[in-house]
Amino acid sequence: MSDYIYYNKLGGTADLTVIRPFSGLITVFIWEVYMKKIYFNELKQYLGKEITIEGFVDNIRNLQYVQFLVIRDINGKVQVTIEKNEQNCKLNNIVDNLTIESTVKISGVLLENEKVKLNGMELIPNNIVVTSKCLDELPLNYKDSNRALIDTRLNYRFLDLRNEKNILMFKVQTCLINAMREFVIKNNFIEIHTPKIIGTASESGSEVFEVKYFDKKAYLAQSPQFYKQMALTSGFDKVFEIAPAFRAENSNSYRHTTEFTSFDIEISYIDSFEDIMNFEEDLLISGLTAVKEKYGEEIKKLFNVDVIIPTKPFPRIKLEELYKELKDKYNFEVNYEDVGDMNAEAEKLASKYIKEKYNHEFVFITDFSPKKRAFYHMRENNIPQGYDLIWKGCEITTGAQREHRYEILKNQALEKGLDQDIKFYLEFFKYGCPPHGGFAIGIDRLTMLLLETNSLKETMFIFRGPNRIEP
Amino acid sequence: MSDYIYYNKLGGTADLTVIRPFSGLITVFIWEVYMKKIYFNELKQYLGKEITIEGFVDNIRNLQYVQFLVIRDINGKVQVTIEKNEQNCKLNNIVDNLTIESTVKISGVLLENEKVKLNGMELIPNNIVVTSKCLDELPLNYKDSNRALIDTRLNYRFLDLRNEKNILMFKVQTCLINAMREFVIKNNFIEIHTPKIIGTASESGSEVFEVKYFDKKAYLAQSPQFYKQMALTSGFDKVFEIAPAFRAENSNSYRHTTEFTSFDIEISYIDSFEDIMNFEEDLLISGLTAVKEKYGEEIKKLFNVDVIIPTKPFPRIKLEELYKELKDKYNFEVNYEDVGDMNAEAEKLASKYIKEKYNHEFVFITDFSPKKRAFYHMRENNIPQGYDLIWKGCEITTGAQREHRYEILKNQALEKGLDQDIKFYLEFFKYGCPPHGGFAIGIDRLTMLLLETNSLKETMFIFRGPNRIEP
Repeated sequence: MSDYIYYNKLGGTADLTVIRPFSGLITVFIWEVYMKKIYFNELKQYLGKEITIEGFVDNIRNLQYVQFLVIRDINGKVQVTIEKNEQNCKLNNIVDNLTIESTVKISGVLLENEKVKLNGMELIPNNIVVTSKCLDELPLNYKDSNRALIDTRLNYRFLDLRNEKNILMFKVQTCLINAMREFVIKNNFIEIHTPKIIGTASESGSEVFEVKYFDKKAYLAQSPQFYKQMALTSGFDKVFEIAPAFRAENSNSYRHTTEFTSFDIEISYIDSFEDIMNFEEDLLISGLTAVKEKYGEEIKKLFNVDVIIPTKPFPRIKLEELYKELKDKYNFEVNYEDVGDMNAEAEKLASKYIKEKYNHEFVFITDFSPKKRAFYHMRENNIPQGYDLIWKGCEITTGAQREHRYEILKNQALEKGLDQDIKFYLEFFKYGCPPHGGFAIGIDRLTMLLLETNSLKETMFIFRGPNRIEP
Repeated sequence: MSDYIYYNKLGGTADLTVIRPFSGLITVFIWEVYMKKIYFNELKQYLGKEITIEGFVDNIRNLQYVQFLVIRDINGKVQVTIEKNEQNCKLNNIVDNLTIESTVKISGVLLENEKVKLNGMELIPNNIVVTSKCLDELPLNYKDSNRALIDTRLNYRFLDLRNEKNILMFKVQTCLINAMREFVIKNNFIEIHTPKIIGTASESGSEVFEVKYFDKKAYLAQSPQFYKQMALTSGFDKVFEIAPAFRAENSNSYRHTTEFTSFDIEISYIDSFEDIMNFEEDLLISGLTAVKEKYGEEIKKLFNVDVIIPTKPFPRIKLEELYKELKDKYNFEVNYEDVGDMNAEAEKLASKYIKEKYNHEFVFITDFSPKKRAFYHMRENNIPQGYDLIWKGCEITTGAQREHRYEILKNQALEKGLDQDIKFYLEFFKYGCPPHGGFAIGIDRLTMLLLETNSLKETMFIFRGPNRIEP
């Protein structure tokens, strides 16, 4: 650690305290501000000072009298300028042997220089350490926006992610999900971690992955639905979970994946699914507000997308009314198998219609057919008390008030032929359960729609599909 | 919703605004403060007012001239008093047919009454709605601390969780993990969601669950180790993930489970594993500080445990020195197979020794044998640059600086016979990778140690072990 300079928040060198609090044990170093790496978007405050920077070598220009490096970190870039002369001979030699995309640690003085296009500053180094060497030519030119077919990009996802749009995408997702999580925490939700290995293929039987569990068969959970409801029967009141969910769907659409991250919400003591829709509006608004504030400009610049904070309430429309409008406006005909339900085309048109009529990006669709909804949705006059939420032409949520009364729930399960496999679930409702409801949002899909990327393959950290379990 | 009273933060009734912003669509109700359930720890502010409460029926006393109910929610209890008279005949009749653990919604006036043992107040109702009925006698008396063997309790986990200690446990875990997460978010970490279905049984080959993935074989990830390091090779700088991890270990110890929630951290641009230990100290301190502040008293009352905020630095000791001390003090002999490593007994004694010598609950053990550590730990003079962190006699973390240099890493993998299966992982390090390190904390184990429960079976929301995949 000795040749590494740490700075505290004021820009001064931190106290390096060597203490031996536990005699006979290892010497312990305490840093005022440990790991205070200097980020390249904060360089201005260090002008005129000696600093140490670390990052990837983004570019090398080795000219006759001078060497230029561009060093990159997660937040920006900085130029390093090394004159070729006797005094610099050691440094010149290092740069002669340096390869692009290696990582380096460079100490030197940061100077203002109007001539430098990159933020008008340059680092004049007195020491360069190559902390890792890029050994080969990159098999993927990650900087090129037309760099390769998506499958080639996925093969080299670790390089593909170095693209500045991808780095921004994950900063944005972190900000979005964290703001949404802060909102639920502020509202006193309990965070639960439900099992992903389950004993029975519970929700539907199809579309689950089978797991070899010692000498038994088990399955991967399609959703935490049953367990988040269980928490409420235990009196947990309001719960959330952010965790993987698994679907053995052999689909290769832009919005399907076999493994995604689900943001699940379940709330007791509601009066109707209106409460759930209201809550989801506020949840999404808190997430989008945080993103717009922190990354709105960068998103506009790199993705050419305007982050729009939706106004409340989001438009709501009954499915039947929607279909009347879509027939009227766009001559859309509902296929027989989609009566009481929606397909991808209907979702797209619904957004188009709502955008034209109300200039709103979101729309709640209600009053689906009970045949097309899960058995655990509460019904009133045989109408499921739930909704789909559509954003920019794609469904992001199914939400509902749940049926919490044992006998009715059991009958609704029977009707779908599900009573045997879900006996354990039905038990939850025998001993008192408050009225409740909830929903789930796939955060990968949410990020895809927010940044308007082409598919989940581009949006997920590592995509999983029927033909892709690598890397 | 019409018979439900919402209160805003000042205790007044919220505005109920009926608007029709989207003609032709459903009427939308906007609540100033939606879902503002009145919690039973906040009742005092409503004294003298008409309110509506919701909760579980915790107790019923049906006497000759009066009926008493105790209603319970997640934060407390309140008494409801109903005189038996003609005017109350409808209410009396409802209570006559009411069963304990049913859920109810009760409107009435909240009055101060010194004679009421339960917080000196009672609700005099004018309306009672039974929102769900407890249909059977409870198969588990969840209030009894000696209620049943743990396996019976797990069979009825949804009832077992109604116990006030369990409710508190999950409030505490939520608080603990959220404070730790806030700490990493504040430090600009990116949150990643790595795949749990993986194509190769990567880290060790044994102890992984096999998944039937369409026509292929796949596996469940034991940890996000490879993928969090991948994020750093992509330039993500600092990442975290909170997600399930799967271990096909046929172990029935108090601290093993086949599925747990792992809090993973990985940090670039470190100088040594000292940086990682420092970071983990601050991470744990931020979590424990939040817990002590919010729940310290309740934990003392229900669990008889003092939440102690550890002082920095935590004691550190080399494994060899530790074993000398344990031999000296407790005549502890290291088994042949544990040379250079630790077993459960050694961990217990290490904590005992550190507690006696330094009055500290935590200890970092360093300098394990390279034979006993993962191939990706960096070594210096053949000593792995990592540590185990032990708390209250149980290992909670293995942390290390990682080997980030391709050739050395490849050799260390070869040495353990792992080079073939992890080819894809080794690729990450060919194209530049900053020095980095990290660790993982099992949050279930952390919660178990914090509250000093007997085993993970008691601590996890739903436990999973070799013989348990239900409910």
